[in-house]
Amino acid sequence: MSLKKLGNRTVKLLNPPSIIGNYTIVGPKEGDGPLKNYYDQILDDDLWGQESWEKAESKIQEEAIRAAVDNAGLSIQDIDYLISGDLLNQIVASGYSARQLGIPYFGLYGACSTMTESLALGSMLIDGGFADNIICATSSHFSSAERQFRFPLEYAAQRVFSAQWTVTGSGATILSSYGSGPYITHVTPGKIIDPGIKDASNMGAAMAPAAMDTLIHHFRDTGFSPSDYDLIITGDLGLVGKSIVLDMMKKEGYDLTGIFTDCGVEVFDPQKQDTHAGGSGCGCSAVVFNGFVLKEMAKGRYKRVLFGATGALHSTLITQQGESIPSICHAITIDINSE
Amino acid sequence: MSLKKLGNRTVKLLNPPSIIGNYTIVGPKEGDGPLKNYYDQILDDDLWGQESWEKAESKIQEEAIRAAVDNAGLSIQDIDYLISGDLLNQIVASGYSARQLGIPYFGLYGACSTMTESLALGSMLIDGGFADNIICATSSHFSSAERQFRFPLEYAAQRVFSAQWTVTGSGATILSSYGSGPYITHVTPGKIIDPGIKDASNMGAAMAPAAMDTLIHHFRDTGFSPSDYDLIITGDLGLVGKSIVLDMMKKEGYDLTGIFTDCGVEVFDPQKQDTHAGGSGCGCSAVVFNGFVLKEMAKGRYKRVLFGATGALHSTLITQQGESIPSICHAITIDINSE
Repeated sequence: MSLKKLGNRTVKLLNPPSIIGNYTIVGPKEGDGPLKNYYDQILDDDLWGQESWEKAESKIQEEAIRAAVDNAGLSIQDIDYLISGDLLNQIVASGYSARQLGIPYFGLYGACSTMTESLALGSMLIDGGFADNIICATSSHFSSAERQFRFPLEYAAQRVFSAQWTVTGSGATILSSYGSGPYITHVTPGKIIDPGIKDASNMGAAMAPAAMDTLIHHFRDTGFSPSDYDLIITGDLGLVGKSIVLDMMKKEGYDLTGIFTDCGVEVFDPQKQDTHAGGSGCGCSAVVFNGFVLKEMAKGRYKRVLFGATGALHSTLITQQGESIPSICHAITIDINSE
Repeated sequence: MSLKKLGNRTVKLLNPPSIIGNYTIVGPKEGDGPLKNYYDQILDDDLWGQESWEKAESKIQEEAIRAAVDNAGLSIQDIDYLISGDLLNQIVASGYSARQLGIPYFGLYGACSTMTESLALGSMLIDGGFADNIICATSSHFSSAERQFRFPLEYAAQRVFSAQWTVTGSGATILSSYGSGPYITHVTPGKIIDPGIKDASNMGAAMAPAAMDTLIHHFRDTGFSPSDYDLIITGDLGLVGKSIVLDMMKKEGYDLTGIFTDCGVEVFDPQKQDTHAGGSGCGCSAVVFNGFVLKEMAKGRYKRVLFGATGALHSTLITQQGESIPSICHAITIDINSE
């Protein structure tokens, strides 16, 4: 019996797993952005000694995972499962990183929702008694994503103002059945919502309805209101998607003013860094969560955070076939207290 | 505490979920193969009224899921989660199928290991008390896979004898906290093993060591021996991979003679159907498991089965960059008794 279900689709964890370690690695542009003081490691060169962007992304993810394990005071042998994914075809950044690590592995594809998809599944596996320590990780790389999803970089296409800038970076989080918090207390998995947008340079608008759907279900299922949170953060809707969510949530009766932001909005300075609507990519919410959110929680600024990474689940082939962009958002509650 | 861990990496489910419904849809070639009497639905046309192979694959998966839910006596509203994935870039067959179904969704990428990756995660989520009913599904399509991974079909390239033939089909399984079996009693998640093979036309050899690693860990962790099973079935190693596993397992002290086969070997008749080393693709193990294995269990021929779907986690881009093919195998025990 699903004893832990709350309302329509939220899960309340009875033995909330603790976040006992984490790590972020970002590229030079991210390291020059407004959150630069929150990252654990900033690369000078986004190839990092590798011969391709894909291999560089895989190395960034592998090193973020190794450092997060170290940061948790554990060794690779202590880890029960690695749960990860990324944007690349056949999630090769994650697969080749997992090959180097030698940990039992569950590969995910949730596009930019992967950080919370992995934390959602990881939390349930620990709460359910199947594991003591789980790594949840994801990554993205500006150059590997751009050439796969949009234009060859050499083509030097102009970017429209609704376009987002794929973050180069990786974040890894270690969940444990032991530890003194912060804890993951609730999980609200997402449904796919497709508002019919076909423009892959307007992901914020494509993903905003999925974010809203998950937030509203979360509030209904748990009985929480926005004021029960110090911070509600989606990712990566960017400036366009953030303003849609703020406006539309108000129409639905949820005023998020002052407590709501988005990882894609926080990660870059759009004026100074020419990033148009903001950051995107699996790595965006991964580095903002593991960098900014968890560090500010540790300092005591936030006690309770609702984090909903958002993903657009199209491929270039299927949009060329005339399909619109379906999106998803998985949300989790992170609390400094376990209940 | 990970109360349900057994040995190094196996999980023993304390409240084993029951398989309460399932369904298979296959293409014309599969429907002409040796298992034709086991499939629920055989298509006359592998485009099935769609305008592309990718959209056809997505429809095949969606319809297999709907029919499996029906077959379980449930409606879509009774389902807590859909867990699925496929071979296509950004798993669009699964994502667009999930969009039509409107069920909270976890997307996976495990290549041809997806059937057991989804059953492994689904079983743990039910056993852990997070859900009552979960759909586990996957699909593949000969034409969508061939043009993505190998050659354009119009090129009419000759296939080498170690090459496998991607199955067109989908299988969906409904797991439930209720029901009278068969039950999933044990889960042994896989580690990535890479024997260094770079030839994407020799997947059987690339995946065989991952299958062996998971089988051996399963036996060690549980204390079971091969003779505790009526059937041990991997998928989709094909003829090349199957013979490697048989030979190498014997050297490791495990004689699988007479009880071991592979979904890729069973699905086609290599002489009559010109399929060289056998079937492959996520759909291969999905239709052999949901068709042949579960139907023979229902008839009483098999009481206890060890099923380990295998996946090769490369992409065309990363093999063009000189990388070898990393592989994985997740295994589950299916038993007509719950303990």
